[in-house]
Amino acid sequence: MRKRIVIIGAVALGPKVAARLRRLDPDVQITVVDRDNLISYGGCGIPYYVGGDIADIEGLCSTSFHVVRDAKFFRDSKGVNVLTGVEAVSINRKEKKIDVQYMADGKKDSLEYDKLVIATGATPFTPPIPGVDLPMVFSVANLHSAKAIKDTISKGMVENAVVVGAGAIGIEMAEALTDLWGIKTTIVEMADQVLPMALGKNISRIVENTLKESDVDLLLSEKLVRINGDAQSGVTSVETTGGQIECDMVILSAGIRPNTKFASDAGLAVGRSGGLLVDSRMRTTDPDIYAGGDCVEVKNLVSGENMMMPLGSLANRQGRIIADNIHGRPSQFKGMVGTFCIKVFDSGVATAGLTVDQARRNGFDPVHAMVSQPDRAHFYPTASMMYIELIADRNTRKVLGIEAVGSQGDAVKARVDAVAPLLQSGITVDDICTLEVGYAPPFASAMDIINNAGNVLDNILEGGNKPMDALEFFEKFANDEIKVIDVRQPKEVESCIERYKDKWGNIPQSELKKRLDEIPKDEPVCLVCGTGARSYECQRLLNHNGFVNVRNVQGGHTLLVALNPEFF
Amino acid sequence: MRKRIVIIGAVALGPKVAARLRRLDPDVQITVVDRDNLISYGGCGIPYYVGGDIADIEGLCSTSFHVVRDAKFFRDSKGVNVLTGVEAVSINRKEKKIDVQYMADGKKDSLEYDKLVIATGATPFTPPIPGVDLPMVFSVANLHSAKAIKDTISKGMVENAVVVGAGAIGIEMAEALTDLWGIKTTIVEMADQVLPMALGKNISRIVENTLKESDVDLLLSEKLVRINGDAQSGVTSVETTGGQIECDMVILSAGIRPNTKFASDAGLAVGRSGGLLVDSRMRTTDPDIYAGGDCVEVKNLVSGENMMMPLGSLANRQGRIIADNIHGRPSQFKGMVGTFCIKVFDSGVATAGLTVDQARRNGFDPVHAMVSQPDRAHFYPTASMMYIELIADRNTRKVLGIEAVGSQGDAVKARVDAVAPLLQSGITVDDICTLEVGYAPPFASAMDIINNAGNVLDNILEGGNKPMDALEFFEKFANDEIKVIDVRQPKEVESCIERYKDKWGNIPQSELKKRLDEIPKDEPVCLVCGTGARSYECQRLLNHNGFVNVRNVQGGHTLLVALNPEFF
Repeated sequence: MRKRIVIIGAVALGPKVAARLRRLDPDVQITVVDRDNLISYGGCGIPYYVGGDIADIEGLCSTSFHVVRDAKFFRDSKGVNVLTGVEAVSINRKEKKIDVQYMADGKKDSLEYDKLVIATGATPFTPPIPGVDLPMVFSVANLHSAKAIKDTISKGMVENAVVVGAGAIGIEMAEALTDLWGIKTTIVEMADQVLPMALGKNISRIVENTLKESDVDLLLSEKLVRINGDAQSGVTSVETTGGQIECDMVILSAGIRPNTKFASDAGLAVGRSGGLLVDSRMRTTDPDIYAGGDCVEVKNLVSGENMMMPLGSLANRQGRIIADNIHGRPSQFKGMVGTFCIKVFDSGVATAGLTVDQARRNGFDPVHAMVSQPDRAHFYPTASMMYIELIADRNTRKVLGIEAVGSQGDAVKARVDAVAPLLQSGITVDDICTLEVGYAPPFASAMDIINNAGNVLDNILEGGNKPMDALEFFEKFANDEIKVIDVRQPKEVESCIERYKDKWGNIPQSELKKRLDEIPKDEPVCLVCGTGARSYECQRLLNHNGFVNVRNVQGGHTLLVALNPEFF
Repeated sequence: MRKRIVIIGAVALGPKVAARLRRLDPDVQITVVDRDNLISYGGCGIPYYVGGDIADIEGLCSTSFHVVRDAKFFRDSKGVNVLTGVEAVSINRKEKKIDVQYMADGKKDSLEYDKLVIATGATPFTPPIPGVDLPMVFSVANLHSAKAIKDTISKGMVENAVVVGAGAIGIEMAEALTDLWGIKTTIVEMADQVLPMALGKNISRIVENTLKESDVDLLLSEKLVRINGDAQSGVTSVETTGGQIECDMVILSAGIRPNTKFASDAGLAVGRSGGLLVDSRMRTTDPDIYAGGDCVEVKNLVSGENMMMPLGSLANRQGRIIADNIHGRPSQFKGMVGTFCIKVFDSGVATAGLTVDQARRNGFDPVHAMVSQPDRAHFYPTASMMYIELIADRNTRKVLGIEAVGSQGDAVKARVDAVAPLLQSGITVDDICTLEVGYAPPFASAMDIINNAGNVLDNILEGGNKPMDALEFFEKFANDEIKVIDVRQPKEVESCIERYKDKWGNIPQSELKKRLDEIPKDEPVCLVCGTGARSYECQRLLNHNGFVNVRNVQGGHTLLVALNPEFF
């Protein structure tokens, strides 16, 4: 008898398993079931559909050659049987079958399997507060909700929107609403920063400024308490722990929950996050049942912890591995390091590994470097500033994480992608100093920002570079705890002196050696320059001359402006 | 007594060693000598200066904060003594001193050293043919020749130029002449392709088409024989092995030779390429003499061979390592994998490791995959086609090289940079299949092109994918040796059928299973689709149905067009 493979879920991982498996084996019988009738779509593209980058919903569920990936497509082109509008109700592991129900007529049936694949994904989390079921409250669950959102706003009925949650989807939706539709949008986020799972305090602050400059209001450290309105007129306002915001629409993007009840009811083990536990061959605790995509936990190879990482890219890679294993080839998915990227209006953000806080929580002793440098040769006309935070463990010098932001997103991603695949093998800071990335002036500096990030972190770890974090600088400066000496050329410093008068001193680097007597020996001195390179050299010069209480501001004036534009 | 460090050469590596060493040690005495008065410049920026991206020559020798890096700058800001206009004549290793001569007045002197650093770079190769010393014959040697070229063409005296050599500098100069100045430019290259050191036949062909489309004439497999003209009117034409080309200017960019005579005369060992031999701490065969940059050989960590790799990026990284070692810190430069990138008009090209030919010459059994895929989610509006060639060894599955080209250069470079740093550790194709790079629709596909390149190569190595190279396809098609079946939708195939009539068959993938009887069993069948994905699936379907003589065209119709636009 032909081997029977049943796959539950037809969005990302499910279709990938089916297509790959069919290529490997012409004879196996493949059945995919999904509650929905819209299948095999790029859910991560929803914000771009809402924001108008993609005109039609079909754009998200079509191949690159513009054929809609529906059940007919899978049958004719892939030799895969897809049952849409069919819900998987329960798994009978003993008899190796699943019970299903046809959603149109309630008809019940069961499907026998030799191997079962669970690809049920995740569902947006709905906060347990009053008003979440009002009209005009949406989540970004699937193509139906995507269409509902776009249909609603394209009627011109929405002037003010509140997005709940400043994770990736929340930020992308806020951009979509603001950029195309001119809807005044407010993001409400519980944490004290945006993208709290992905970014540390420095890079997130830059992203927050980008959002604000793009006319998105941002309420951090505030929690949604209630949504006001009624069934007729829909939403009128939301209440947060900080106050009330008038609005016509609410988008809930406060995280997701894996769809695993069905599987855990059948006795399959789930992890702390609620995701199914799988081994590196993507097998659940039942060796005949595989799972992957948004409904499983994956191992973070830097922290060693399991976590949820709902990304279409992981789903696709895992899908191929599941198909291999079903076919008898022992391919493995060893885990991941949390590589993530996002476009935020005109900037790109990318990250991999752990943030400083995450590293500390995982028992490391993190040390970090913040580097400001143009993303290509500084003399090349399209050069624009990029910011990188590189994080390593003090004792082992192992690199723990990297975060980057800049206006040319592909270039930002290039730096993080060059480091991310190495993180799992425990590379050290020294490897980043000599990391071999391509060089040509239109694309990189001779000493590229990524190498420089390694160099700076090396200097910090070696004790030669004694940095002050920009965020610490703002605090100490406000409290008059430091004496600032700006070592740039006088004309570069003019505006700072104009604003801060005698609180902002200036001794150009070239004159420093002759003007040592102007430097106080009895109070903390903080050196500032354009990006941190000159101030570091000056700090060493001062150290060599007996000044011990000297630090230099990491990333320099450029970073200070990026973090806190109002300061200047 | 203060330790005395003498550095010969003040362009890239020399200044880097000096600046880093000063930061590490305030007391060491650092003297840099250079024949030239223009120092510490970005030589790789010369084509962009000639092409107008950089307005003034000062742009190439200034810091990012617009201060010219001259001797005064090094003295005042870095505490480094730079002697310009001073030539190093010989090394007396026994007495640890170098003899120098002041070029202005011929005065001789000597400089004692505790450690010597040779950073003498390389000189453009001048072919030994008649006419190379005529006026209007230039090489891209330094800022003086850069200025001479730009001054000459900005007077409007040049209508036709010949560039000799289609390496990086030749291509960049051809672009500069054509793009800004509208000079009709012809590149003459001995090899049968452009960038012969960096690229294989597929990607180089795409670059050649970009050049032609940008109005650069390209004469491959032709050698310069003579430059005609006279001392008054300068150049009038050049003769090549293929004919004669009228022109007003010749730019020689036919490779470089390391400046090592001085060092080899002193008994320091040089390698086969003429570059100085150094160990991984950048020491020559004399442990008190370091060398780096364009005058040394470096080890290719994929092939194991030493080679020249004249790149400002390597010079900078090596410079830091030399400074560390002089300071007593045993930093190492372990070698490189030939990572290279270049902008060619509106496209970006990047590569790392070995080409197929280089791999074969080095004793490997190379297998390659050619993949055509959009550089971001195909539904994202800025998506554009990228081409990647991934090369691995058949027996070990180790990745040997990667080449990529596309219209968004940062995105091209991102893919190569994600692989390049892994090449030295012997990663396999499987690692590329699951390579963890960032994913978001504006920057990548869920199954990104880099992962897909791994998947395709894996399928080829496993024997499931039986590819035909595009270049082989053209040959076989021209010779009527294959039956073409295009498995795209009829409307996608219209233009091909119109042009090639019954030589170009069409059976859409969705109908293939029902129309098996139309496929010849007795002659070689070649399947074509858009990018190679559907044709691969169809090939497997046909194999499963007993058709054994079936192959699919790698990269599909998209790649065929990119390689041979006139074919369609």
